[in-house]
Amino acid sequence: MKKINTALISVWDKTGVVDFAKFLSDQDIKIFSTGGTKKILEKNNIEVVSISEITDQKEVMNGRVKTLHPKIFGGILADRNNDSHIKDLEEMNSLCIDIVVVNLYPFKSEAVNKDLKISDAIEYIDIGGPSMLRAAAKNHENVIPLCCKEDYDKFKNYYLNNNGEISQKERMYFASKVFKLTNNYDELIYNYLSGNESLNINLNKNENLRYGENPHQKSTFYLPNKESKQWNQISGKKLSYNNYFDIEAAISIVYEFSDLSCSIIKHSNPCGFAFGNTPKEAYLRAVTVDPISYFGGIVAFNHCVDSNVSLELDKSFLECIVAPEFTDNAIKILTKKKNLRLITIDKDKIIGNRLSVKSVFNGYLFQDKDTICEDESGFSVVSKIKPKKSELKALILGWKLVKYVKSNAIVFSNHNQLLGVGAGQMSRIDSTEIAINKAKKYGLKLNGSIMASDAFFPFPDCIQIASKQGVRGVIHPGGSIKDKEIIKEIDELKMFMVITNKRHFFH
Amino acid sequence: MKKINTALISVWDKTGVVDFAKFLSDQDIKIFSTGGTKKILEKNNIEVVSISEITDQKEVMNGRVKTLHPKIFGGILADRNNDSHIKDLEEMNSLCIDIVVVNLYPFKSEAVNKDLKISDAIEYIDIGGPSMLRAAAKNHENVIPLCCKEDYDKFKNYYLNNNGEISQKERMYFASKVFKLTNNYDELIYNYLSGNESLNINLNKNENLRYGENPHQKSTFYLPNKESKQWNQISGKKLSYNNYFDIEAAISIVYEFSDLSCSIIKHSNPCGFAFGNTPKEAYLRAVTVDPISYFGGIVAFNHCVDSNVSLELDKSFLECIVAPEFTDNAIKILTKKKNLRLITIDKDKIIGNRLSVKSVFNGYLFQDKDTICEDESGFSVVSKIKPKKSELKALILGWKLVKYVKSNAIVFSNHNQLLGVGAGQMSRIDSTEIAINKAKKYGLKLNGSIMASDAFFPFPDCIQIASKQGVRGVIHPGGSIKDKEIIKEIDELKMFMVITNKRHFFH
Repeated sequence: MKKINTALISVWDKTGVVDFAKFLSDQDIKIFSTGGTKKILEKNNIEVVSISEITDQKEVMNGRVKTLHPKIFGGILADRNNDSHIKDLEEMNSLCIDIVVVNLYPFKSEAVNKDLKISDAIEYIDIGGPSMLRAAAKNHENVIPLCCKEDYDKFKNYYLNNNGEISQKERMYFASKVFKLTNNYDELIYNYLSGNESLNINLNKNENLRYGENPHQKSTFYLPNKESKQWNQISGKKLSYNNYFDIEAAISIVYEFSDLSCSIIKHSNPCGFAFGNTPKEAYLRAVTVDPISYFGGIVAFNHCVDSNVSLELDKSFLECIVAPEFTDNAIKILTKKKNLRLITIDKDKIIGNRLSVKSVFNGYLFQDKDTICEDESGFSVVSKIKPKKSELKALILGWKLVKYVKSNAIVFSNHNQLLGVGAGQMSRIDSTEIAINKAKKYGLKLNGSIMASDAFFPFPDCIQIASKQGVRGVIHPGGSIKDKEIIKEIDELKMFMVITNKRHFFH
Repeated sequence: MKKINTALISVWDKTGVVDFAKFLSDQDIKIFSTGGTKKILEKNNIEVVSISEITDQKEVMNGRVKTLHPKIFGGILADRNNDSHIKDLEEMNSLCIDIVVVNLYPFKSEAVNKDLKISDAIEYIDIGGPSMLRAAAKNHENVIPLCCKEDYDKFKNYYLNNNGEISQKERMYFASKVFKLTNNYDELIYNYLSGNESLNINLNKNENLRYGENPHQKSTFYLPNKESKQWNQISGKKLSYNNYFDIEAAISIVYEFSDLSCSIIKHSNPCGFAFGNTPKEAYLRAVTVDPISYFGGIVAFNHCVDSNVSLELDKSFLECIVAPEFTDNAIKILTKKKNLRLITIDKDKIIGNRLSVKSVFNGYLFQDKDTICEDESGFSVVSKIKPKKSELKALILGWKLVKYVKSNAIVFSNHNQLLGVGAGQMSRIDSTEIAINKAKKYGLKLNGSIMASDAFFPFPDCIQIASKQGVRGVIHPGGSIKDKEIIKEIDELKMFMVITNKRHFFH
């Protein structure tokens, strides 16, 4: 057993240090300290030996050189199992230091955030602190580095639960934390000195996927340091590359609404969406939008999945079912299919995702996610005819859904469900015609429905086509140079038109 | 002027250090050194003062504590403009150190790459080196840290060109380089100790975009440290968010072929592609694929853009023109439109992009790019009828193009050009019908053409539909449980079928 006899404490942030030093003192651990730390400990009646008593060296250059001394570094770096190290230490008239409690000068809060000029900022570059911590971490087999106040309690618990011993695993934890800290600290200084507007993304591998978008492409999922997955997989096969994106889209859609709803995603486009009084009603209605393509799709609910809907879900081949929760009976029914993935995701977590990143050429394009939550408060009705209440519900439904359809995107909807989707076309008329053909193919009536477009109509052509199907009104961003002509056409066709002033391109 | 009088040299990697020390010595700069560095310099007849002569301290613990001494750190950290610092230094019987030449123990090549066990690996964690470099970098107003051999010549040139003076800007350069080095060094150690399979992406801001995919989304383009943009913009407006991706797709397509070709992208899907004997012929033919949607598109060539094609390009509204190069006359013609973006990109650079990254949930999905270059050597003809030579050319054209069309993707092509594109549908039949309708709409004959599908045909239905249009054959990955039935159908329809065994989903 490695008995802990000594601790060196030198901290900028004094939070919790008195209590922790008292604890060490109570365990008969001798404390060495210097400067402000020494003062506060002594004021609290903790016995402290001054570092200068070991080094026989007064603090010089206003504290720029306090601890950078061979007796201190010898005490930290000595390999306790190496007799020559111990002999060297004794000859130097020094002793082993078993714990190093140090936190660093606050370069970020003092130099960066306060935008100090360089000559003042450099005073916040800690030299002795990182040197001691790194030395202790290097020699973690013998020394325990504690580099942040959060580790005081951690150490205490380990110590008390193991009769004063700290295991190799725990020592490694404290040691690797040091290098993470100095890694981040020096990155901050580098960015400050070089004036780089740089961005460092530190990721940890979460899992290797079976493959990427296709079997000949390797793929791996990474998470930012310290973050964990936002979803929970109850059962089923490992997620595939495309599952990730489709699950995110499916659950994002239903979480746009407070009314009970169900969405179905296929090839990254919604191919079904509906409201219902029960999950079963919403699901069965969503399936009517494309009763062929939903096969192999991803289904999401913004409501607990119960056994009633599960019996229906079980009848088809689906890739994943996503929801805030599942009842025990639902799980029993749905886990009979070994491959079917059941996933739970909280609404809060999904809404928290604010940034989208995509690689392009040799770089990365970052953008805010298109997370704007819109309702009728942002709508301007520019036609003579105004939408009725149920038509307004259809407009909101269509407008929220069109955001998730690949551009150029057209959707038709009523107050209850999606009716037709025209996705990913190079021409807006093509998207309109595709959406109409889909609705007709599956016997859904467009009469009385609304049409939503992700970007403005450049000409009245799509509106004329929709009007022939009995479509009552349209919603789009507006902003075409032909807006006036289009509004005139709308009024002549006795339709209504809502302008949102927000575009929703999505590729 | 800050005269440089002294240098401390302590390097693991000795490359170039003798020449550099000779240079310093020739400038009457006094050299302090220790250990192996001292030996090699002395062997080469360079006058060196031992560090232990300053510190009065022998090297202890097998070199674990060599330079960690207040006299050394005082000499590095002393503020030369602060009288009390200089007084402290004199009282310590030490002196100012003006240059610190240090490179670090090779943790990566020795510990990580050789997969040492922890107790051996820690010997390659450098403590003194980073401490001295960081101290010198902190005090860069007075001290110059040189942390890699590449900086020897840089320093020499600065020194000689400025009569022995190193400017503040140059000092800052050397200083910030230190923190970049220690930042990376400690990251490496952190990853090693924590066993994290982590990935750090260090990016620099390249430019803020006007906005992201839509005006309410902010967007910024970042490049990896030390890398520069892979393209060159000759003229025109700033690239938009969508331009980035469309330009990459447009140029990637033409660079798949060695024959002169032209591609047109709209909303991230190809809406035109053709071969031609001249850029003009290729362009005019590519436009025929969708003579409406190409408006506002991105046009790319794998050949120098000349004045002939430029006169044609000038007749339409286009967003960008991309090519390996433009003739001077072409530039004259095309830069008359102030907004039109002209971009050059080398083939080598685009082909070098091997990784794709996309954010999803709170993490990132990495995958290999789908850059497989395929030709007939990977094709298996599984039908009784075999494709003729010109049909093979059509098959290759279609197969290379379908990879860039959003899934589910169907394209029709002949040996010269794309004929119809069915993009981004949730059902493969829908994609087939869309592609046929597009071709018919613009008077392109599918009779004698081929059909390419990004994933296998699950049923013979799409093939039956294509056959009615006189399509001669199909190319697809194969692998459906109904493959046999499909081949039988193909033979009965007197068509040919090529299996690639590679899928090209793309979302």
